[in-house]
Amino acid sequence: MATLQLYGRERSGEGDPMTTVGIFVFPGVEELDFAGPWEVLRAWERLQPDDGQHVALLAQHDGPVDCVLGLRVTPQLTWATSPPLDVLVYPGGQGTVAQLGDETIRGWVRGLAAAGTLMTSVCTGALVFADAGLLDGRPATTHWASLDRLASLGCDIELRPDDRFVDDGDVITSAGVSAGIDMALHLVARLAGDDHARQVRRYMQYDPAPPV
Amino acid sequence: MATLQLYGRERSGEGDPMTTVGIFVFPGVEELDFAGPWEVLRAWERLQPDDGQHVALLAQHDGPVDCVLGLRVTPQLTWATSPPLDVLVYPGGQGTVAQLGDETIRGWVRGLAAAGTLMTSVCTGALVFADAGLLDGRPATTHWASLDRLASLGCDIELRPDDRFVDDGDVITSAGVSAGIDMALHLVARLAGDDHARQVRRYMQYDPAPPV
Repeated sequence: MATLQLYGRERSGEGDPMTTVGIFVFPGVEELDFAGPWEVLRAWERLQPDDGQHVALLAQHDGPVDCVLGLRVTPQLTWATSPPLDVLVYPGGQGTVAQLGDETIRGWVRGLAAAGTLMTSVCTGALVFADAGLLDGRPATTHWASLDRLASLGCDIELRPDDRFVDDGDVITSAGVSAGIDMALHLVARLAGDDHARQVRRYMQYDPAPPV
Repeated sequence: MATLQLYGRERSGEGDPMTTVGIFVFPGVEELDFAGPWEVLRAWERLQPDDGQHVALLAQHDGPVDCVLGLRVTPQLTWATSPPLDVLVYPGGQGTVAQLGDETIRGWVRGLAAAGTLMTSVCTGALVFADAGLLDGRPATTHWASLDRLASLGCDIELRPDDRFVDDGDVITSAGVSAGIDMALHLVARLAGDDHARQVRRYMQYDPAPPV
């Protein structure tokens, strides 16, 4: 079994679920922002269950969530029922706009970060991290159309517009929408090694060839 | 407005919805197989509504559908409530295995094809097309692990293992899982021109860079 290089925790025993990954969804979340990492991380769980991970969809409240393009999904966990998270994936989407300045969201995000959760974002999920103060003085990225806004939400955020994702240790931010797939594969590589990440990539036949 | 080059139909009037795209979901569907095309095609609808398209998630029956990796989604349409489809996207996933030899599925697929629906598949969705006889004597592809099975389900199917997708006019098949993103961008390009497809690609920031 690959050694888990999980931020802030150590594996308690062989076979115990250890790495709890919560993928957050909310009204107005962008579909591929979460569905890309979901596919990568759940496929990893299916292919390599001995890595001791558990990946779940997580919402603030119970019940179905309406995504920005009209997809309706039902999460497995809520803030109330979720176990402690080792990794959070915070997707973007138009729904993040209403979350900026929201003290409930800020408190939840800061609480997870303070507890040692590895904080990862896709697209404009980074705006929420910045708004909670997580990105001050750090390198980060977001969707190309939100780079200026990202900078305005924090102090001395070092924008990385050309990076697909930025791994700054306990915080990882990604570029827009589809970049979450690349970030999630990096996450598997970081947590379980390149070989396991390559197996997921092969399973997904992720040899992208944009036709335009 | 770009000219719609839609298979088998002509646009009836400026501003009328014309291109109805149904993305089929079923128990055991692979998440990214449908979520990739969903993101591409719904983003196209948001960015370029004057192209006259409508994209919906479609299931056989009413109610939520459980995908193979555990995502639960609620479709907008059922076979009973769906308008005539100009384009069908048939994703793959473990759930396709139970559909092979199923006369209800065969009849639905054959009926759509006979009515002039542009039939597109992702991953092992191609197995269902082959099982319904749609791929006999044609070039086609599917997930790398299902190529032999695809050949065994039809007569003289010309396998294209190295193609990301195969456009054979009224039938388009794609390689595994993530290939549906590339196929859907091709579909936008075919229906509405390269410029509109490029706008969708830009919106999704689809500049993939697999890290492993």
